[in-house]
Amino acid sequence: MATPNLDFSSDNAAGVAPEIMAALAAAASGRAGAYGADAWTEKLQRAFSDLFGRDVLVMPVVTGTAANCLALATATPSHGAMLCHRTSHVNEDECGAASVFAHGGKIVPVDGPLGKIDPSLLKAAIATMPRGVVHRSQAASVTLTQATECGTTYKLAEIAALASIAREASLCLHMDGARFGNAVASLRMKPSDITWKAGVDVLSFGATKGGAMGAEALVFFDPAQVRDAEFRRKQAGHLLSKMRYVSAQLLAYVADDLWLRLCGHANDMARRLAEGLGNLPGASLAYPVEANEIFVKLPLGVIARLKAAGARFYEWEWALAEGADSMLVRLVTAFDTRETDVEGFLAAARNH
Amino acid sequence: MATPNLDFSSDNAAGVAPEIMAALAAAASGRAGAYGADAWTEKLQRAFSDLFGRDVLVMPVVTGTAANCLALATATPSHGAMLCHRTSHVNEDECGAASVFAHGGKIVPVDGPLGKIDPSLLKAAIATMPRGVVHRSQAASVTLTQATECGTTYKLAEIAALASIAREASLCLHMDGARFGNAVASLRMKPSDITWKAGVDVLSFGATKGGAMGAEALVFFDPAQVRDAEFRRKQAGHLLSKMRYVSAQLLAYVADDLWLRLCGHANDMARRLAEGLGNLPGASLAYPVEANEIFVKLPLGVIARLKAAGARFYEWEWALAEGADSMLVRLVTAFDTRETDVEGFLAAARNH
Amino acid sequence: MATPNLDFSSDNAAGVAPEIMAALAAAASGRAGAYGADAWTEKLQRAFSDLFGRDVLVMPVVTGTAANCLALATATPSHGAMLCHRTSHVNEDECGAASVFAHGGKIVPVDGPLGKIDPSLLKAAIATMPRGVVHRSQAASVTLTQATECGTTYKLAEIAALASIAREASLCLHMDGARFGNAVASLRMKPSDITWKAGVDVLSFGATKGGAMGAEALVFFDPAQVRDAEFRRKQAGHLLSKMRYVSAQLLAYVADDLWLRLCGHANDMARRLAEGLGNLPGASLAYPVEANEIFVKLPLGVIARLKAAGARFYEWEWALAEGADSMLVRLVTAFDTRETDVEGFLAAARNH
Amino acid sequence: MATPNLDFSSDNAAGVAPEIMAALAAAASGRAGAYGADAWTEKLQRAFSDLFGRDVLVMPVVTGTAANCLALATATPSHGAMLCHRTSHVNEDECGAASVFAHGGKIVPVDGPLGKIDPSLLKAAIATMPRGVVHRSQAASVTLTQATECGTTYKLAEIAALASIAREASLCLHMDGARFGNAVASLRMKPSDITWKAGVDVLSFGATKGGAMGAEALVFFDPAQVRDAEFRRKQAGHLLSKMRYVSAQLLAYVADDLWLRLCGHANDMARRLAEGLGNLPGASLAYPVEANEIFVKLPLGVIARLKAAGARFYEWEWALAEGADSMLVRLVTAFDTRETDVEGFLAAARNH
Repeated sequence: MATPNLDFSSDNAAGVAPEIMAALAAAASGRAGAYGADAWTEKLQRAFSDLFGRDVLVMPVVTGTAANCLALATATPSHGAMLCHRTSHVNEDECGAASVFAHGGKIVPVDGPLGKIDPSLLKAAIATMPRGVVHRSQAASVTLTQATECGTTYKLAEIAALASIAREASLCLHMDGARFGNAVASLRMKPSDITWKAGVDVLSFGATKGGAMGAEALVFFDPAQVRDAEFRRKQAGHLLSKMRYVSAQLLAYVADDLWLRLCGHANDMARRLAEGLGNLPGASLAYPVEANEIFVKLPLGVIARLKAAGARFYEWEWALAEGADSMLVRLVTAFDTRETDVEGFLAAARNH
Repeated sequence: MATPNLDFSSDNAAGVAPEIMAALAAAASGRAGAYGADAWTEKLQRAFSDLFGRDVLVMPVVTGTAANCLALATATPSHGAMLCHRTSHVNEDECGAASVFAHGGKIVPVDGPLGKIDPSLLKAAIATMPRGVVHRSQAASVTLTQATECGTTYKLAEIAALASIAREASLCLHMDGARFGNAVASLRMKPSDITWKAGVDVLSFGATKGGAMGAEALVFFDPAQVRDAEFRRKQAGHLLSKMRYVSAQLLAYVADDLWLRLCGHANDMARRLAEGLGNLPGASLAYPVEANEIFVKLPLGVIARLKAAGARFYEWEWALAEGADSMLVRLVTAFDTRETDVEGFLAAARNH
Repeated sequence: MATPNLDFSSDNAAGVAPEIMAALAAAASGRAGAYGADAWTEKLQRAFSDLFGRDVLVMPVVTGTAANCLALATATPSHGAMLCHRTSHVNEDECGAASVFAHGGKIVPVDGPLGKIDPSLLKAAIATMPRGVVHRSQAASVTLTQATECGTTYKLAEIAALASIAREASLCLHMDGARFGNAVASLRMKPSDITWKAGVDVLSFGATKGGAMGAEALVFFDPAQVRDAEFRRKQAGHLLSKMRYVSAQLLAYVADDLWLRLCGHANDMARRLAEGLGNLPGASLAYPVEANEIFVKLPLGVIARLKAAGARFYEWEWALAEGADSMLVRLVTAFDTRETDVEGFLAAARNH
Repeated sequence: MATPNLDFSSDNAAGVAPEIMAALAAAASGRAGAYGADAWTEKLQRAFSDLFGRDVLVMPVVTGTAANCLALATATPSHGAMLCHRTSHVNEDECGAASVFAHGGKIVPVDGPLGKIDPSLLKAAIATMPRGVVHRSQAASVTLTQATECGTTYKLAEIAALASIAREASLCLHMDGARFGNAVASLRMKPSDITWKAGVDVLSFGATKGGAMGAEALVFFDPAQVRDAEFRRKQAGHLLSKMRYVSAQLLAYVADDLWLRLCGHANDMARRLAEGLGNLPGASLAYPVEANEIFVKLPLGVIARLKAAGARFYEWEWALAEGADSMLVRLVTAFDTRETDVEGFLAAARNH
């Protein structure tokens, strides 16, 4: 039996799915047009249009930050505001990049339970920025994270409710889908139903966390919204000269539903891990586990034991309250997490 | 008896104090060096150094937004964060300008009662931005508004408490003194005591609201913090060619304590108006009136009566709750508010 | 007889015309709406529409840099290029501000004799930026300086030729009219004929150098081109709270052709000075004197004599060539230059 | 015998060297720290320090534009200027990105023969930006392209001469080494000798054009110059989560002098192709062929023949002069160019 790998620190710590490595190897030699004028990138337009059931424009980039920021900046002037969940990557983990890409556009965090924007708080935030009042930043875009940074998923009705608010205020609706595959695999819905049909204008379709080497697809559902995104990509240094290697990853990722199998597996492992941890004395899950992230409050003794066993995960609190005997931690599974890894982790937690 | 002027909409609606007009007229003719190389601007350095009891560097500009943004941007890189009160001008009334001047630096609102930043919330906000973690914007500066946007003032101990937190985290401490004169006149303290001696690094010393035509002094207490502020001022189009006319306003404003007389008078009028309004049946002051702004909840009937009488003031709520019978309004007095104006307003409110 | 004033350093060194001071004094007291909601600013729209014979949108600001940068940034995205003459203020004297306002848009200098853009060089510069090629900045705007930085003026046919090139390439045509009054007084043409009728889209109409205290009118000839200029002005800190005082200056400046009298007088003084200097042995004018600036090569002995007499002017060369016995200097007249000043300067130059 | 590949459009059109694909495959599976906290990235610091004979800081990115812009922006404030050759990628092929990264810093092109900055023109350009004059952008950095965009190389003495000018003016000296391997292979000098020992502060060490998939190393020779580059990389979306795959490419590229073999081969093919083309009747080389690019003026008949044969290359003139019978074209070889490709191209050109 294989030695369990106890690294649950991040899906970014995972490697590359074999199918994607094979696609890169297949594209390795021979000449191809530079800067996207290659057969892979051309084919990608078709593949994603098929995937989403309508003609879309896809721009391959290599990081989620680039995808998110290009999407938001395209829709947000320097006097505009980008509304996002307080826990979103845009607000908390991208070093203010969206504001830099939007030349000073304002990041406005909105709260809501389970990592999801609360519709009434979104409305209230928009209301503080009356249209045309030059003293106030003007609401320009909203971004939803799917799956959320709490490991939950937005349900169709939740997306539609927020989309309706965005549409009424003429805001661009962006979806940060760094873990879009995990959400789709979890919701078991068609990608179209929870994106453009629900009112999403532009999607950061992540593949890196799902099993690619470094590939994200910026998907514009409405060509009119693309505006100057291609110039912005070039200016940001995100137009890769040998772009075929990003496109090849994305093609392999979506071919034959590979992405749903990879992400579905990660979700399965997360659910199994969550069940095991939830049964530990003194442990409690912070949120329902609907994708591949687990937020769980663990007794300090369990944490110490896990660390001693070499397990890796993030402590999710900057500081513990005086006298606290447990702590919130985050565990992430990936396409390459094995049952043996889950079992090994649980065994270490249980200390037997 | 003069007809009362019922315009209490803003101190920005006031005119120019006669002493300041006289100073402008005195500077009207003759040649002077351009772009600040004139006798007035030179004298200004001396006048402000005397006023604050230490050598300071003064940069005259014409708007509070320019002063605030130049101060903050000088201390805040594009990956930095500027912490301010949620109700501050920087957050709510400058269209995100600080972020544009700081090339994407993030505006982070912090709450607290009476328009003042709560020290524990400031600490908590800083703690979310651990030093050196590239994923997070880095706290770089804090700005206090004195007097606050609620018409209150920071007391010395309150400034010192926040300054201590800022210093510990190596943040630049800025004071937005658009109504600094009102605060000083109210607190009856020396300008030095509630600025650099209390830990303030840079001050937007406002004169426009106090009675100037358009003049604000950006005061750096520590020359080392000035950095590239002069280049930034030029780049922002805020280096006036005939700068003597901004400097002349500022010189007249601080000469012979004119500023304290003008602001003290506005404060007196506000207090008198607040007393009268506070005694109206159904009315209640939202905050203590410590400067020249009054926030008062008035019965809708009173509001209607005042409007019918031609009174001007701001309704301070975007929307009224269902069934509400009163509303928060803001009234502002200025150097040119007369007792007769206050009496006239109260009479209209009382309807007799 | 009055002592001559030998300061010919700049029209920015001049004071304020009495008519403009009177207008400021007249506006000094009383209440008025803040941020441009005042009677002066409203009247300004009418006054400038009359002046230009069509409905225009006027935005008052206090510096030429602000006017130029707001005009150009409104028309130029971050991947755009702003074409200007190499000697233009935008290129040489505004510290790259246009690029900052345009969030990275590129300043592209174009050459041409007498301070005027050469049409064939403009065409060639545009040709290096093929439309739609993401690797290249995209030409977005052209700016002409009228009068030029060489003290010459663009003639109608010259403007039309450049406008035709701009129109064909879909570029916005801006005119930097810091000395627009000098140009109009010199050309003796209607303002409309050399602006919008000739193809100019937006004008920085300067008044400061002409005799105002600090007032420039940003004039959009086509409302559709204004776009987000008002938000940009606010964000740049250029929306003055007591805007009536900028508008009042502009109203007085254009009332009863005051501006043309003031600038016409400055032009006359310049011509007279140029004639006197041109007759000095060893002196030679660098450009025809068509406005209020004189560029003249003077023998070093004359320069030394003038300096000894206390005269002020700019030496226009960073370094003198080895063995050079003369140097290019710049002299500027203003509305307040008197004949006695000109005579005094010439006498000092002639040493008798 | 293999069919010749007649695609000489760009080294960006080439694939990935087998050794680099092997390194990627070897890194494909298993867990590793995200965002650069992995063994490959750690090893990279050592490998590049060895390569350059001193401790350096290496930041892996995926495009040359990102490397160049991060390097320049780190050294250039918004009021700064970046001096570069007129033909440089920074000036002509990155859509003004350096200015966006530097928040408005100015790109100032300087001329010189053979794609190299002329020292006296560099001095003259710097002299137009006197230190401390707020009206002028301030020279902050210089960038040299090695090998140049004309297919030539800077010789040691040429670098030293420019470095001396940069140092005297306190400018940061950057080298754009998108084709650094071609330059080193051509010059047969140690990397250290033509970089930091010659005065270069920071290097964009390109691997993509040399045979990597998408990998560039931003090399800081002086840790003090790194400043906030890591925050800037994050903010630009260039901090890859699975960074091991960029680092692995770079490690393989420099291991056992692979880079010099790959680039040396490309240079050889270029020289051979140039010899053949130079002997064609009516053809003439525009520049000496010192790296892997050939600029050659070809008779139009030859060009037509080559196109008919399916050859690919860039026509290097936007428009042909009236009556011209030849045109400048650019050919680029790469690590995977074979002798048979060169022979095939020459045969097609000769039409036999």
